Amino acid sequence: MHILTGGITAVPGIRAAGIAAGIKKTDVLDLALIVSECDAVAAGVFTTNQVPAAPVLLDQRRLRRGKSRAILANSGNANACTGRRGYRDAVEMAALTARALGLSPEDVLIGSTGVIGKPLPMERLRAAIPALAARLHSDGGEDAARAIMTTDTTVKMSAARATIGGRPVTVGGIAKGSGMIHPDMATMLAYVATDAKLSRTQLQKALRRATNQSFNRLPVDGDTSTNDMAICLANGLAGNRPLSPGGPDARRFQGLLDHVCRELAKMIAWDGEGATKYVELVVKGARTESDALKVAQTIANSNLVKTAWFGQDANWGRIMAAIGRAGVRINQERIGITYGNVPVVRRGLGLGPSAEDHAGVILKQREFGLTVDLGLGTGKAQVWTMDLSMDYIKINASYRS
Amino acid sequence: MHILTGGITAVPGIRAAGIAAGIKKTDVLDLALIVSECDAVAAGVFTTNQVPAAPVLLDQRRLRRGKSRAILANSGNANACTGRRGYRDAVEMAALTARALGLSPEDVLIGSTGVIGKPLPMERLRAAIPALAARLHSDGGEDAARAIMTTDTTVKMSAARATIGGRPVTVGGIAKGSGMIHPDMATMLAYVATDAKLSRTQLQKALRRATNQSFNRLPVDGDTSTNDMAICLANGLAGNRPLSPGGPDARRFQGLLDHVCRELAKMIAWDGEGATKYVELVVKGARTESDALKVAQTIANSNLVKTAWFGQDANWGRIMAAIGRAGVRINQERIGITYGNVPVVRRGLGLGPSAEDHAGVILKQREFGLTVDLGLGTGKAQVWTMDLSMDYIKINASYRS
Repeated sequence: MHILTGGITAVPGIRAAGIAAGIKKTDVLDLALIVSECDAVAAGVFTTNQVPAAPVLLDQRRLRRGKSRAILANSGNANACTGRRGYRDAVEMAALTARALGLSPEDVLIGSTGVIGKPLPMERLRAAIPALAARLHSDGGEDAARAIMTTDTTVKMSAARATIGGRPVTVGGIAKGSGMIHPDMATMLAYVATDAKLSRTQLQKALRRATNQSFNRLPVDGDTSTNDMAICLANGLAGNRPLSPGGPDARRFQGLLDHVCRELAKMIAWDGEGATKYVELVVKGARTESDALKVAQTIANSNLVKTAWFGQDANWGRIMAAIGRAGVRINQERIGITYGNVPVVRRGLGLGPSAEDHAGVILKQREFGLTVDLGLGTGKAQVWTMDLSMDYIKINASYRS
Repeated sequence: MHILTGGITAVPGIRAAGIAAGIKKTDVLDLALIVSECDAVAAGVFTTNQVPAAPVLLDQRRLRRGKSRAILANSGNANACTGRRGYRDAVEMAALTARALGLSPEDVLIGSTGVIGKPLPMERLRAAIPALAARLHSDGGEDAARAIMTTDTTVKMSAARATIGGRPVTVGGIAKGSGMIHPDMATMLAYVATDAKLSRTQLQKALRRATNQSFNRLPVDGDTSTNDMAICLANGLAGNRPLSPGGPDARRFQGLLDHVCRELAKMIAWDGEGATKYVELVVKGARTESDALKVAQTIANSNLVKTAWFGQDANWGRIMAAIGRAGVRINQERIGITYGNVPVVRRGLGLGPSAEDHAGVILKQREFGLTVDLGLGTGKAQVWTMDLSMDYIKINASYRS
């Protein structure tokens, strides 16, 4: 596998652009466009929130056809809780884009992220969309990635290439999302493209699987926003042999897609709002993978564990308490907890102040690993998470004002 | 119903005391004793955490007999994750108490709250318990309430009396817990006593029901600690007629017990760590009470909703997003949200900036109501919750150091 730059536009046949459309108050990029030069097979994974934003509803309908050509996505406004007007606006956004590109409106998908409950400034979008289309470029991936940022402090792009089905196949993507995942800003948008040739069913299955191993491993735990989406376009330009299901080529493609999605997810975790610590949390020794994931999510969602990380305190009691309420069967006397390579708990008992002091050194780092061994089986799961800091409160108490 | 002072010692036949046993570093009360002058029927509700502390395990065994005489509870040390030694220590605490009081060790229940994973200073307990027993007093409720406090900033006591079964019956209680509920400090201890005469089965059922309407309405949502417990002793001294199940006397007793538990729960919410806002959250119009409770808990557990309260921002989008991911069936277009008496959302749509400005005035208060109407049925639930402030982070990042 070769790592590439350029994000989504590293993929042959994919162009992108970003523009400052005036949706955000300040003059920054807030509207992104991604276009495939030919018809692409399309798949999507969407929020399970029962208050879905208009673009989510629209895209879910459009994806029933299983193909698409373009994605238009804005930041600064979620177009959520906007009723029928919001849906009409999303439909119009797609129509405007289709007109600018000479496509059918059904070929266009829409994404939005930002404040909930405000109507989109459609006048500005009507002016901006043709100008945006005129900027499309095979180097436009970074601009598009910038244009979907909200409280993100870093641009999130990833791309990689591997030989699959006898041909070089590329997967590239962009994403937005700030680790703590906050529903009112549409949490997470991920747009991925590939030149692999595969069926719609194969793509949907592969994207679902990649999402489960990446974006669903952020500490969200059902905390899906109104606007979450991951979409993948596959334009087939690589001309690879058909990927026979379960065969080595299909597995290689899955690996490539998994890699790109995982890299994007890790960037989201790294960019956690106000985060001072980035934690790679592994739970192993569970009875099942699902048990391991539940325990990992419970630890990663504990405000008490997260504030202890912020305080650089190897407070393993809070981790034990989180494990105990994760809703899976455990045996306290078999639990081991290790920060980096420093064990602090063995067989459910603390290893004393000197072990905690050693672990404290690990906790002073910007990034560290935490391993919980339940000692019961072979189930294993990894999540990426971060601490809960004063700045998180500051950002979220003052956002919108 | 008459409201009484004195907490648990407002109940005839109940004496209590507190002492500074030296379990905490500073010279403050940290050991409490509650004693009934005669055999009492006893019931308990315990944490569902699978890493239960030693006192939880001990009490669960002892309560199988359904009667008890005394409760010894310490703060400053949770006696959790302390293995066999911890259990032996809890057994010894009960034995020491029994000896000091001339009781059988089986008559004594134990509670602990504080730091996880450290052995109790048993030498100090051996010295303190006889001195504590010598202090027992019919006015000792407040000292006992103080002695179980950890980060609590207020003493939590409640008592009330009503005529039941032809006789005045009293219920009184004490509790500790700081609203945000943090597992490593054993979250919540509640000790309630009554002079009502009733069976063990009746008491257990009534306590379970009262707990569900009170302590389980704090924003914990499964976030049970290793040490949570609510225990009730009923010494029968009121000499009331038997409470026939489902009859008016049983209902009146339930009302009295509910009242005391609810008052204690509200005090815990009020005393939330670092909290600047206290919120009475009602969800109504749900299909079922269970649906209403799920929605209320999801809102009350949302860091984003809580930081918006801290920021005094009537950000209803975050509430909508929380409703949408509560895991119950809803219809976005029927949702109404009201702060105090100011509607901000009707039929799923925001009522505009002027409504939000009005609501903003409500949010400036120290205490306010929030009503969510799902518009689907008659299910209703209330929880008490608080905001998430900078001080919460400060307290929990530095606690232990």
